[in-house]
Amino acid sequence: MMAPARPIQRVAVIGAGSWGTTIANLLAGKGFDVTLWARESEILRELTERGENSRYLPGVTLHPQLRAATSLEESVRTADLLIFAIPAQSLRQMVRQARPFIADGLLIVNLAKGIEEGTCARCSEIVVQELKQHNPVAVLSGPNIAWEVVRGVPSKGVVACSNYRYLGLLQNVFSTPCFKVYENPDLAGTELGGALKNVIAIMAGIGDGLGYGANTKSAVITRGLQEMIRIGVVMGGHRETFFGLSGIGDLMATALSEHSRNRRLGECLGRGATLPEAEAALNGRVAEGIQTTRALLEIKAGYDLDTPIVETLHRVLFEGLPAREGYLATWNSCDRLEGN
Amino acid sequence: MMAPARPIQRVAVIGAGSWGTTIANLLAGKGFDVTLWARESEILRELTERGENSRYLPGVTLHPQLRAATSLEESVRTADLLIFAIPAQSLRQMVRQARPFIADGLLIVNLAKGIEEGTCARCSEIVVQELKQHNPVAVLSGPNIAWEVVRGVPSKGVVACSNYRYLGLLQNVFSTPCFKVYENPDLAGTELGGALKNVIAIMAGIGDGLGYGANTKSAVITRGLQEMIRIGVVMGGHRETFFGLSGIGDLMATALSEHSRNRRLGECLGRGATLPEAEAALNGRVAEGIQTTRALLEIKAGYDLDTPIVETLHRVLFEGLPAREGYLATWNSCDRLEGN
Repeated sequence: MMAPARPIQRVAVIGAGSWGTTIANLLAGKGFDVTLWARESEILRELTERGENSRYLPGVTLHPQLRAATSLEESVRTADLLIFAIPAQSLRQMVRQARPFIADGLLIVNLAKGIEEGTCARCSEIVVQELKQHNPVAVLSGPNIAWEVVRGVPSKGVVACSNYRYLGLLQNVFSTPCFKVYENPDLAGTELGGALKNVIAIMAGIGDGLGYGANTKSAVITRGLQEMIRIGVVMGGHRETFFGLSGIGDLMATALSEHSRNRRLGECLGRGATLPEAEAALNGRVAEGIQTTRALLEIKAGYDLDTPIVETLHRVLFEGLPAREGYLATWNSCDRLEGN
Repeated sequence: MMAPARPIQRVAVIGAGSWGTTIANLLAGKGFDVTLWARESEILRELTERGENSRYLPGVTLHPQLRAATSLEESVRTADLLIFAIPAQSLRQMVRQARPFIADGLLIVNLAKGIEEGTCARCSEIVVQELKQHNPVAVLSGPNIAWEVVRGVPSKGVVACSNYRYLGLLQNVFSTPCFKVYENPDLAGTELGGALKNVIAIMAGIGDGLGYGANTKSAVITRGLQEMIRIGVVMGGHRETFFGLSGIGDLMATALSEHSRNRRLGECLGRGATLPEAEAALNGRVAEGIQTTRALLEIKAGYDLDTPIVETLHRVLFEGLPAREGYLATWNSCDRLEGN
């Protein structure tokens, strides 16, 4: 029989982008003893000196109990819960760096939403592969634009973990009156929803850049959801999960919000920008959908799936197809029946 | 063996609101001989004299071949296809008025998205009940804000009919390069998606009125979709249909668009307006979701379904519950697991 889950008091959050900082701040507000670690020392200095992270959350005053980590080692060694908020393409390196300090059995939650190029690994798989010891790994996902959660706008999230003992525990850890957290035992599906939706959101953003409206966007999202399911199911996700908060919910928020990086990247492309120009407009923030598109093309080829949006986006991002032409090409795919 | 479907040349559109006018205009542009009938003679006069419908589609120049009907009788008697674009609560009366002129076997398409109070009938059921003769009845639905379709913004729609012979025919009738039409044999599910989504869109609009953002709206839409499915399935719709253009797609467009009446009604309520004040702000346009909410409460009671959004909205609309209070009450429903 397994030991009961350890009560959580100290939390280490690795990565001080907008979402990592938001979650660290939320947990500090709930009374957890939270340290936030970032590679960039100026972010940690500002956090300590002024209680702000002006690069990623300008204008937000963070909770006074939220502390900048003095060292990665101390932060991780003393934690009861370790949270990674690192983009998928950098996560493996980060896990390796933290590995010497991670105790066997330490509960780990991942916040990033992406798929690793080359390996096609989900974030939780990256963690498991690098640790090679018993660490339960969970994910927090859902329609959560950081800018809104950090301001206390009512939001809903999902924790997923394949070990049910941690689901209730983590639901309690993350829930606040403004942030209602649901549970889902489908770890793969929950992670995949978050990763795949970025690809569809880029395409939806292209429509915005072209000046189209609600009809177009709704159609792209609806058809995109079907593509997410086709890919997600062969990658081990449950079909039902894609109809929930971490699937269609997250896709919608990403495609709706002014603050979504992936949507904004698409918008720039739709206005005629090249990929490097569109990326530059994000001011150093990462649009995970770019690399995820590349990873998905590999998966799609292996399974011969019908994924017109992913394929077309790949051509727009990496093969010089003009965004407008690509967008309209996906418009008239040949199927007649809905649900195909 | 049934006769082959009759080729369509003449089309009668009954009802000159924004969507009826848009579809009449689209068909006139494709070369069909279209007459548009409305109860309001001033709309017909303006259509004839200036080629506009400034009440419902201000600023739009309609196709020169689109004609105002000179009489309901002549228009309906000579038609190969009859299209009703009449709100659900007025449809029965309109069908009775047109009934003497409707030939047996005439193909009928309904455009309205609502459920009749008192009978809980879908629009196609109203038509069938009133005609008591053989008329195939189909529906055109999907994420179609009229204002966008009439301007040629790329949009996707769905025709549904339980007789497959008419599906392909109607797909051809309505499709244009900018309006791609899919087929769905699930008539009930397609109609119900369009009707139920108005209820959820009012609630999503309340969130807008309260100043919330993309996270909140995505969560309401995602949870609302689950409610639509619970109700829609007991009313005869196929679960899958709600994940398509006429379900989640239409829900999304309605909740996204500035032009959606149901969303705007909710927005007014969220800002503190009473129901009569919010209705007045629509300038005589009908928000079908109001009556549909009343009809759904009846259905919900008969089946003991879990429908927190419908119930709460009923209390906000008809029982004096402040919109803000209602909105936050649905926020913390007691379920823990996603997908419940």
